[in-house]
Amino acid sequence: MRTTTGWQSNAEGTFALDRVTIERRDLRDDDIAVRVDYCGVCHSDLHRIQNLFGEGLLVPGHEFTGTVTEAGPAVTGLAPGDRVAVGTIVDSCGACPMCEAGQQNYCYEGPTTTYGGTDRVDGTPTRGAYSGEYVLRGTFAHRLPDALDPAAAAPLMCAGITMWEPLRTAGIGPGSRVAVAGLGGLGHLGVKLAAALGAEVTVLSRTAGKADDARRLGAADVLTADRYESPEARGRFDLVLDTVPAPHDFGPYLHMAALDGTVAVLGYPLPATVQIMDLIHGRKKLTSSGTGGLRHTAELLEFCAEHGIAADVEVLPSARVADALARLSKGDVRYRFVLDLADLADLPGPARAAA
Amino acid sequence: MRTTTGWQSNAEGTFALDRVTIERRDLRDDDIAVRVDYCGVCHSDLHRIQNLFGEGLLVPGHEFTGTVTEAGPAVTGLAPGDRVAVGTIVDSCGACPMCEAGQQNYCYEGPTTTYGGTDRVDGTPTRGAYSGEYVLRGTFAHRLPDALDPAAAAPLMCAGITMWEPLRTAGIGPGSRVAVAGLGGLGHLGVKLAAALGAEVTVLSRTAGKADDARRLGAADVLTADRYESPEARGRFDLVLDTVPAPHDFGPYLHMAALDGTVAVLGYPLPATVQIMDLIHGRKKLTSSGTGGLRHTAELLEFCAEHGIAADVEVLPSARVADALARLSKGDVRYRFVLDLADLADLPGPARAAA
Ligand SMILES: [Zn+2]
Ligand SMILES: [Zn+2]
Ligand SMILES: [Zn+2]
Ligand SMILES: [Zn+2]
Repeated sequence: MRTTTGWQSNAEGTFALDRVTIERRDLRDDDIAVRVDYCGVCHSDLHRIQNLFGEGLLVPGHEFTGTVTEAGPAVTGLAPGDRVAVGTIVDSCGACPMCEAGQQNYCYEGPTTTYGGTDRVDGTPTRGAYSGEYVLRGTFAHRLPDALDPAAAAPLMCAGITMWEPLRTAGIGPGSRVAVAGLGGLGHLGVKLAAALGAEVTVLSRTAGKADDARRLGAADVLTADRYESPEARGRFDLVLDTVPAPHDFGPYLHMAALDGTVAVLGYPLPATVQIMDLIHGRKKLTSSGTGGLRHTAELLEFCAEHGIAADVEVLPSARVADALARLSKGDVRYRFVLDLADLADLPGPARAAA
Repeated sequence: MRTTTGWQSNAEGTFALDRVTIERRDLRDDDIAVRVDYCGVCHSDLHRIQNLFGEGLLVPGHEFTGTVTEAGPAVTGLAPGDRVAVGTIVDSCGACPMCEAGQQNYCYEGPTTTYGGTDRVDGTPTRGAYSGEYVLRGTFAHRLPDALDPAAAAPLMCAGITMWEPLRTAGIGPGSRVAVAGLGGLGHLGVKLAAALGAEVTVLSRTAGKADDARRLGAADVLTADRYESPEARGRFDLVLDTVPAPHDFGPYLHMAALDGTVAVLGYPLPATVQIMDLIHGRKKLTSSGTGGLRHTAELLEFCAEHGIAADVEVLPSARVADALARLSKGDVRYRFVLDLADLADLPGPARAAA
């Protein structure tokens, strides 16, 4: 066993995480050890830290970049010193139809999640990248392209791929019309990626407050909620990336979808009511997806390197994790917090983060 | 004004329709008059006769074949004596994006429905084809291909096109795997059409009772409900045509859909709960559609003529409409009742159908 330091949620579900010593496994033949450099703070971290799903204590963090420090003898293509990026899954069965299709995120046996999961070999719980080191199968780490800044690239591994899969699945390219509902960690990357794919992008926003930002990110237009039901909005979009992180009616988005258009629900995974009549008129599709498989993730990193795309981030030392969480819970970030884990090496023993 | 005889629903919502004299408009320049020969009895007729939607008295009937008896001077391509087929819509705005795409069924101004609608020119209510004659714009009548039997072809115009649009939209062809849930008026045509398109078809059925029929219609396999959640069923179908005419859980069908597969909800248009998690795992799509536009309908008739496809029908004289409705309400038909309207010419004055 090896040990590292991580930030762990507490029984009260507050944002003041505990700095704790955690174990990492000794490297298996196909494992790498990664020094975690930067880890994004995802909306789902927030919910899980608050223990909304009853999972107990967690070390969060599932979008990170780092540097390989060791590689097992069976690892190919990665060596100590290489920069890597890791997302929300760190293993899968490798044999089911989804794994064979490169969609390990939908593995029929259940992928091993980067935190809150269970290692397939030794049965230990997985702990995330709000920590100094991570150990995983080398095949689930992606080489970070040289062109990408490691802090700004970290959020590509959850927020970015969550936007990328539906864009690619819908065949978005030049001539496509894409709407992005909600301009947060997911949405701002949705705008950048859709625009870089050649689509005409419109941001759907409850208020006009983020209009300048939307245009700077690549949107051609902004529609505020009072215009969702207007004739100009009707049937306008081939794809609506719905990143709204709260319960809401899909009706307005379906109204804005074109003939055979798609509304991809990506910000809120709980059961919802759908008006089948909203689907009927124009043969609309309601879909969803969950992060991405290795194939799409590799493609995304390459695309981002080529097009100079990464997240707009606010980088904080990891000891300020409570700040990041509290501000994220209020939507006070443009557009993703990223923790710089370098401070963990200098901090003294276990302690609670400043609230 | 001209008059004809039709079967009209009653205030009590019973199946004993009233035989009444109804008016048809004098032909406008682009109108045709059609002697109705055969009219299918659709599940939605049943609901509307029972006045579930509070529409008041209706002459039902929106899938019919007949013979042109008169044509206005501006009608092109149709002349007295021609056999025609008419479906669920008889007019639309002609100018909106949906009409321009040949999807008059989704006309932004609302298509004029064959019954229970309002004529766009004179504002009179439309009355359906449980009647001796129908008058409509010639462009909304399709020439019935010679190869098709007029009684068996009538249900193509609602049930058939309701199956055809989602099959075509999903790009079904050789190598596709299609499931049809519910083997009734819609489903039996779904099986025939999907098989003729080259797909491998599986019927999903609560019970094994219709297995022989399913195979005769073209299904390669039948899955009963106890196997819906089995590993062999998981991710098996590119498209599930869900024709179940009652509230039900989409979960099992989404489970059986493949990566990027589609569940098309076609039998029950009321609001429903969808588990977004069922969409996430495998990036499934939930969709629906409503009959079809002129372009798809013309394509369907041509396809059916080429492949010798029509509905399996039980033809009854129109005076037995109450029988047909009562048996349909119990699912006692394989697979579509068609009324033969010839008896209307011989019947005496207005009366109630035998219950
Ligand atoms: Zn995340
Ligand atoms: Zn797998
Ligand atoms: Zn119908
Ligand atoms: Zn129109």
